[in-house]
Amino acid sequence: VHGLETADFDLLREQIDPLREQTLMSPGPTQVPPDVLEVLARPVLHHRAPQFRAALRGVRSGLQDIAGTENPVLLLACTGTGAMESAVVNICGPADTVLVVAAGYFGERWIELTERYGCDVVPLRYEWGGIPSAEDLDRALRARPDVKAVFLVHSETSTGVVLDLERFATVAKSADVLLVVDSVSSFAAVPIEVDEWGIDVLLSSSHKALMTPPGLAFLILSPAALEAANEALLPRFYLDWGQNLATQLGDEPETWFSPAISLVCGLEAALARIGREGLDSIYERHVQLGRRCRSGVKALGLELFSPDDDTAAVLTAVRMPPGIDSSSVVRIMHDRWGITIADGEARLKGNIVRIGHLGYVSGADVDRAVQALAGAVAEVAEVQRTEVA
Amino acid sequence: VHGLETADFDLLREQIDPLREQTLMSPGPTQVPPDVLEVLARPVLHHRAPQFRAALRGVRSGLQDIAGTENPVLLLACTGTGAMESAVVNICGPADTVLVVAAGYFGERWIELTERYGCDVVPLRYEWGGIPSAEDLDRALRARPDVKAVFLVHSETSTGVVLDLERFATVAKSADVLLVVDSVSSFAAVPIEVDEWGIDVLLSSSHKALMTPPGLAFLILSPAALEAANEALLPRFYLDWGQNLATQLGDEPETWFSPAISLVCGLEAALARIGREGLDSIYERHVQLGRRCRSGVKALGLELFSPDDDTAAVLTAVRMPPGIDSSSVVRIMHDRWGITIADGEARLKGNIVRIGHLGYVSGADVDRAVQALAGAVAEVAEVQRTEVA
Repeated sequence: VHGLETADFDLLREQIDPLREQTLMSPGPTQVPPDVLEVLARPVLHHRAPQFRAALRGVRSGLQDIAGTENPVLLLACTGTGAMESAVVNICGPADTVLVVAAGYFGERWIELTERYGCDVVPLRYEWGGIPSAEDLDRALRARPDVKAVFLVHSETSTGVVLDLERFATVAKSADVLLVVDSVSSFAAVPIEVDEWGIDVLLSSSHKALMTPPGLAFLILSPAALEAANEALLPRFYLDWGQNLATQLGDEPETWFSPAISLVCGLEAALARIGREGLDSIYERHVQLGRRCRSGVKALGLELFSPDDDTAAVLTAVRMPPGIDSSSVVRIMHDRWGITIADGEARLKGNIVRIGHLGYVSGADVDRAVQALAGAVAEVAEVQRTEVA
Repeated sequence: VHGLETADFDLLREQIDPLREQTLMSPGPTQVPPDVLEVLARPVLHHRAPQFRAALRGVRSGLQDIAGTENPVLLLACTGTGAMESAVVNICGPADTVLVVAAGYFGERWIELTERYGCDVVPLRYEWGGIPSAEDLDRALRARPDVKAVFLVHSETSTGVVLDLERFATVAKSADVLLVVDSVSSFAAVPIEVDEWGIDVLLSSSHKALMTPPGLAFLILSPAALEAANEALLPRFYLDWGQNLATQLGDEPETWFSPAISLVCGLEAALARIGREGLDSIYERHVQLGRRCRSGVKALGLELFSPDDDTAAVLTAVRMPPGIDSSSVVRIMHDRWGITIADGEARLKGNIVRIGHLGYVSGADVDRAVQALAGAVAEVAEVQRTEVA
């Protein structure tokens, strides 16, 4: 790694830095801004209090604004995977054929979920880190006219690939199948136009670009998705769209079960923050942060795993040089540099690191992460040289 | 209502009291103490950071201490109903006969859940507010030797009845059936001895006597429950015990999916608080708060709906006098007196109010709630007299 070959790593290792706080730059959970944290520390509202109903209304319309939709928003007290499972149990049946686009850990999760509920799954699989193509989807759908729904991941958090959702939606629409989109790490980081593009189910969660702690997920549901849910036969309760949505609609919304009250209030504050910054500015900032991160990583002589272009606006995945274990790099960045990033997921563990630059992240944060990455990679390399010698 | 017949309600109605905060005395969500709120406002930890693993270990052992158990604790990012559903999908199959004890809204939820998943449900039903008897359970189990599991609610939050769990457990044990206990509002308010009594599944959530916001649930699972889960056939993913537990066990626990990080950290602080107060003192305080509340309510000339004895340590349910709508009483207590209590649930709505005295509640809080109840009931009565006249 350039520029750190002569660093005194013994000195670094002995550094005592007790006041250092962690900067959270994983691709989720992400940093929560002070104004959102402050809301989390307020006394808890009752879930039927007027102030909480106002928070529900605010969250609903804030999420609709970001998604560009008038479709209803359904909040669930769970994380993204719960919302994914809700999509499967609310629109699928054991006899249904579904197509899943998978090019990483979370695409594989769609396959696992749909198979577990007995669907006939047509996988459109890519190597992890591959960029799914809408032409491939078009061909696959022509070959299998029995497909009822397509499941895909907008931003594959395990690889850093953000696919061209508008084109995928166009293909799904022309094939007249339901389109279910995991936008967990893309929502509020990358533009999404639910109504214009015709997305039937869009799901995301609180703890990515929405800058709120994990534990709150939501779905945006088209009339076709709700109609499919009405006819779907799989049993479900906690994740049932119809019963949950019925209580959340209207001017006096409440929730079927106890909602994640503090997270809803935190999200309301985060959405207000998003409103103040403005969506165009947020999307542009994410593009710029991605550029800044890639430029820094490449200047270190490291190789990108995520795409080297502006689609990689959510996170930057970096290949480790031969012999460098990414788990050690992540640990040293955490322990010594105060920067929390993520290791590779599952089969990529040990091989790549992932720097999240979504949500409440500044250019200076990205620069510090790159600096810490340089130091950590150099230290792991140095330790290995010492061990070999 | 004694003592408020001559109050000047016009004056009260015109009162401006902008600094008044709500005191949350519903039977859930409950008040969150300042030291727990402070933790919620700290920067979010990464779910694989050492500090978060320490929080997971602390929460696990703190919950085991309260439950008197060495059985494993499974955390889920959902509310109590999600944990209830997990019990059904992890131990039941469509052909299984289960017995449900139901004497209120949450007992009925067990019936709805088990029926929805195709169980053959033997209901042991009581009028809402009735006190289930272990002798009835014994008789019912003798009549139906095909019962595989018994589902019951320890503290029926809709009525204020806390059943004699030790005796129910003895009966279930001697019949050799699995016992599944909803202890959502009893856990940490009323003594529970999981290992001594032989409870197979005990579930609860963060937002009752555990003094943390809603969105985090947990289960304590016996070897027999886990064995049943291994053999159960219903598909499940987000709520699957085996896969979730496998990641949470051991000295380096993590979670299968993103956990509700801030709530886990808040719960760790709440458990530390519980450790400082001591369980014996907490249980005694809950008994005393129940006495204080019943005494105050009866002094007003109002009639109790929940039992008039020390088993009613979680909440006090109060019948409304003829013609007094409980919904109006709850609203006036909220708007004018700054006290949030709960209306009756479902078929009891309009007829009773429920004052929660579980978790972070003082005797002075109870006194203020009784005072506010007196004022609100008198005001509703006065309004009605005026309207009639």
